[in-house]
Amino acid sequence: MMLFVLKGKGEELKDSLGRSSASFKFLDLYGKRVLIGWPDSEMEKLDSPSIEFRVKTKKPYVLSSAEWKKERTVVDVSGVQIGGEEVVVAAGPCAIEDEEQLRTVAKSVKASGAKILRGGSFKPRTSPYSFQGLGEQGVRLLVRTGQEVGMPVVSEILDARHIQLYKEVDMLQLGTRNAQNFTLLRELGKFGKPVLLKRGMGNTVDEWLSAADYVIYEGNGSVVLCERGIRTFETSTRFTLDVGGMIVAKLSSHLPVCADPSHPAGRRELVHSLALASVAAGADMLLVEVHPRPEKALSDPEQQLTPDSFSLLMERIKALAGALGRKA
Amino acid sequence: MMLFVLKGKGEELKDSLGRSSASFKFLDLYGKRVLIGWPDSEMEKLDSPSIEFRVKTKKPYVLSSAEWKKERTVVDVSGVQIGGEEVVVAAGPCAIEDEEQLRTVAKSVKASGAKILRGGSFKPRTSPYSFQGLGEQGVRLLVRTGQEVGMPVVSEILDARHIQLYKEVDMLQLGTRNAQNFTLLRELGKFGKPVLLKRGMGNTVDEWLSAADYVIYEGNGSVVLCERGIRTFETSTRFTLDVGGMIVAKLSSHLPVCADPSHPAGRRELVHSLALASVAAGADMLLVEVHPRPEKALSDPEQQLTPDSFSLLMERIKALAGALGRKA
Amino acid sequence: MMLFVLKGKGEELKDSLGRSSASFKFLDLYGKRVLIGWPDSEMEKLDSPSIEFRVKTKKPYVLSSAEWKKERTVVDVSGVQIGGEEVVVAAGPCAIEDEEQLRTVAKSVKASGAKILRGGSFKPRTSPYSFQGLGEQGVRLLVRTGQEVGMPVVSEILDARHIQLYKEVDMLQLGTRNAQNFTLLRELGKFGKPVLLKRGMGNTVDEWLSAADYVIYEGNGSVVLCERGIRTFETSTRFTLDVGGMIVAKLSSHLPVCADPSHPAGRRELVHSLALASVAAGADMLLVEVHPRPEKALSDPEQQLTPDSFSLLMERIKALAGALGRKA
Amino acid sequence: MMLFVLKGKGEELKDSLGRSSASFKFLDLYGKRVLIGWPDSEMEKLDSPSIEFRVKTKKPYVLSSAEWKKERTVVDVSGVQIGGEEVVVAAGPCAIEDEEQLRTVAKSVKASGAKILRGGSFKPRTSPYSFQGLGEQGVRLLVRTGQEVGMPVVSEILDARHIQLYKEVDMLQLGTRNAQNFTLLRELGKFGKPVLLKRGMGNTVDEWLSAADYVIYEGNGSVVLCERGIRTFETSTRFTLDVGGMIVAKLSSHLPVCADPSHPAGRRELVHSLALASVAAGADMLLVEVHPRPEKALSDPEQQLTPDSFSLLMERIKALAGALGRKA
Repeated sequence: MMLFVLKGKGEELKDSLGRSSASFKFLDLYGKRVLIGWPDSEMEKLDSPSIEFRVKTKKPYVLSSAEWKKERTVVDVSGVQIGGEEVVVAAGPCAIEDEEQLRTVAKSVKASGAKILRGGSFKPRTSPYSFQGLGEQGVRLLVRTGQEVGMPVVSEILDARHIQLYKEVDMLQLGTRNAQNFTLLRELGKFGKPVLLKRGMGNTVDEWLSAADYVIYEGNGSVVLCERGIRTFETSTRFTLDVGGMIVAKLSSHLPVCADPSHPAGRRELVHSLALASVAAGADMLLVEVHPRPEKALSDPEQQLTPDSFSLLMERIKALAGALGRKA
Repeated sequence: MMLFVLKGKGEELKDSLGRSSASFKFLDLYGKRVLIGWPDSEMEKLDSPSIEFRVKTKKPYVLSSAEWKKERTVVDVSGVQIGGEEVVVAAGPCAIEDEEQLRTVAKSVKASGAKILRGGSFKPRTSPYSFQGLGEQGVRLLVRTGQEVGMPVVSEILDARHIQLYKEVDMLQLGTRNAQNFTLLRELGKFGKPVLLKRGMGNTVDEWLSAADYVIYEGNGSVVLCERGIRTFETSTRFTLDVGGMIVAKLSSHLPVCADPSHPAGRRELVHSLALASVAAGADMLLVEVHPRPEKALSDPEQQLTPDSFSLLMERIKALAGALGRKA
Repeated sequence: MMLFVLKGKGEELKDSLGRSSASFKFLDLYGKRVLIGWPDSEMEKLDSPSIEFRVKTKKPYVLSSAEWKKERTVVDVSGVQIGGEEVVVAAGPCAIEDEEQLRTVAKSVKASGAKILRGGSFKPRTSPYSFQGLGEQGVRLLVRTGQEVGMPVVSEILDARHIQLYKEVDMLQLGTRNAQNFTLLRELGKFGKPVLLKRGMGNTVDEWLSAADYVIYEGNGSVVLCERGIRTFETSTRFTLDVGGMIVAKLSSHLPVCADPSHPAGRRELVHSLALASVAAGADMLLVEVHPRPEKALSDPEQQLTPDSFSLLMERIKALAGALGRKA
Repeated sequence: MMLFVLKGKGEELKDSLGRSSASFKFLDLYGKRVLIGWPDSEMEKLDSPSIEFRVKTKKPYVLSSAEWKKERTVVDVSGVQIGGEEVVVAAGPCAIEDEEQLRTVAKSVKASGAKILRGGSFKPRTSPYSFQGLGEQGVRLLVRTGQEVGMPVVSEILDARHIQLYKEVDMLQLGTRNAQNFTLLRELGKFGKPVLLKRGMGNTVDEWLSAADYVIYEGNGSVVLCERGIRTFETSTRFTLDVGGMIVAKLSSHLPVCADPSHPAGRRELVHSLALASVAAGADMLLVEVHPRPEKALSDPEQQLTPDSFSLLMERIKALAGALGRKA
């Protein structure tokens, strides 16, 4: 497939494309006018002074690719910039359980330096007999608490039919089990809000970036790629955090990358190590689970940090970011 | 969690459960009245002459489990029995391309001994720039062709909002990329038609059976488990067909198992070997991709069989099934 | 690298090669005179009427490759032909424990139709605190028992310094943990006896065939490739038997292939299914663990078959092989 | 199995053990007298005032375990301390090619802050047709160059029969392909020099620590565990560096841990990220490939750093270590 960066609107190209057998789309992304189309045999014929440059790729993705956009994308989440100098930390409970739990965590993580509040309300659980989250009520609680403490919020969406419930949520998370749910990816593209796009636990980097293309293709360029561990033969951790794959994704694309150290750890004492490793490797964002009393949590009790442990982690992240010429 | 097989309706249990803090549900499945509930501490208290027997499990699934139902389930797909003596073969094109392609394949595979016609119309493609299928029109074409040649049809569903389009489809396929799309699983449970449940390429057998529980929990016990290859380090095949995992799933559950030899093969010359291996191991069903001119196919050109090769495969399957005391 | 099949001895090529910077070796293999050398830039220059044909490959292996030898190799193990019409079964205990255990199993498996007696004596154990085998004494016991019951024997070698102990062993097994022990591979090449070459649990098919090249490069063409399961994320089986990889190895090479259904199963009730699947896919040989009282075995108690179960398995294998136009 | 830490020599225990059916061994390790034995049923009977404390484990390893030794082990490599406050970097070429190459690299990495010189001479290559290293001559060159520039040296051993060639080598590396070569592990235990023990690319953390037990069981407690990437489905990196597994190994044992960022990277631009991630996670040592002209290297040309890039990496490592309260 081919991508063209244009100087004008490219109306004159529309005509010749309309007469060809090509599939194509014009998009306005990152302040640029872009034309994408295929098959190559048709697209290669295009010629016009309005074509600034063109890129042909054998990869299954192109919009998220660094092949056409060398400058790194900074995603704005209601004022918080992801992908710039600062390493942004989002923190909060795995699952929202009640108002007090959420408010306690929110105030605490904010005081420690987290910039975004995370909280799950529609929970994708392996077993239908596990706690499924508070649903709609939880989303409302999260929005209200975010406003109260003054933090943008991020939460996972499971069902395209729920999307209107997320109007006041600042960033929508697409979870690992939906990483190739193309219906939901397109819907998030149309919705337009920033997307935290988790990598599928069985997906390659190429598939992950192709999922990002599904979102961007609908016109939404605000995508942050989130590595959360892949499935391997090693069972001493819950998943294997693929730090190398995260960096390949960063180098192959222009999008910011995030690491979730909580899910691969599966146990509290590893979360700090994985978080620090991710920042040192080049993560632009971290997503960390924090619970006031982890041992009582209704989901993932083994891997959520206490507020005190999170506070210590933030200090270590700040020191590390400083040593690397960034801040946190 | 606990499962109770009841003699009557169990109305008297409802009362005591209503007064407890347990989560519970009564279901009518496979001609039996079943109660399922948790936590164990509450469920263990239940006592009534209407309780035939009870099962407590540490697994994340129970309805699909052989722990409570020893007799193997036979799934009826519009008259075709899956899970009985016969090894049932479903065959057809990866993607429906046009009426002629579909009719040619349908007649040919029927003549060779296939019992169900498969055809994809909403295609889950890694890249948004690949052929996405004919959509609604393809589903209608499939139904019409199935009626014309006299075969039940199976097709994949991608989006819960499409479900009404599948009213005349005999069996709905849940694909590997949606293997933990719990929204869609529940919807298939409510819809009630037989489900061909593919294993996620990154999912364990336990997660696969838990997905089956999502469907059955909504009252639909007609689930066939389909192994289609998992993600491993080996790249000489597209995926690694996990014959052992398929048999573990069969032994751990009462549900029939199916193998898809086409996707893991990724190349035609391996399809026969993987198909025969699956039957020898104990598969109750096979799902095979057949195309009149594979090299011209709009998707998966490398792995679709020609009608002639499929015909030869059917002969070998029949010989094999016979040697194992089954038929095909 | 390049391989040349020659008509004569190729003496005249030696001269010109001696003057070049090429690395090269002449070998007499499978009744043919072969020259192998690299780099390609030097080898391409060779020209002589004695060159029957030449093969250039990008693969890391060539001697085991079907690229130059289309006819399938049949390996003779003291009269038992592996790779021909017959599916050959080798059976015996995981570890030799004492004379009576071994003799009981040997007589029983022979009566059921096994053609080769297997038995481990130097055992590669994950933990230094597990039973390490009877060592030298066990090898002697195996040889004596094989002679007594009239069966060739196969046993694993762990240390190049032990090789003289295996003079009367008919086939030497190279285990999965030594699959890339290049020292031992070369030694087996020089020793000249048939080699049962297990695939490393973390090795690709290409690496497996490259290991075969190490053996053949020393002049020993009698190699049988043995698939025994690879490491994947699935934990319900001990390893994942890669039936597809076994067939890729068969198609990519001229060597016979064997399957070990016992190690990947890790539990008795799966061994039959995996054995039958392997035969149906195209295995030329099976390696099966049998113990008179598996539950008392000093190693792998979970996966060894009883003699009765093995006898039943042999009947099923014979029926299956017959249906596929082979015998067992 | 059980481990006892003793106050005296434990002679009195020898007698009662001699009369039992237990397997046992007395060892002097880390300044302590240790008795290890099995089965538990026999060992549990032991009682004596000389028993300081006892540990019973279900793991396949115990000598390398933190269950009995809480203080972290510091391994001394000819004066360089591994496992203390300092992060030690070993650097040098993948393969020693000639005197000038080695001396150039040695001087350069020393000037940048590396403390140990690495260089391969017996190279384990997937293909028999790849450069196999300079062998004995290379080992001598390494020793001489180390003495000349004033750095201890580390090099890989492939064959137990070569061990006397390593008398002047300061640390012996056991490579990933020999990670379960129990013959070689025992030999390294007897030899007594510090061992850099790489994890097998298909091995779990438990298997890795069990390999360490093989070495320590022969009386050699100077083992450094080296993570170098595992085999997973992801192909955009050569291997998947398992930072989490490395930390689990550190927490489960008392041994120092090392990371090799070069092999998993497979490409130069990832080496820095993986090296920094490893240090941030808690690595005590790094093993980095450096070559004066990587693009001309006879092995691994893609992943070796230039001296300049290594110098920059050392600066970043020092900054990072400082931020974490360590030094480099």
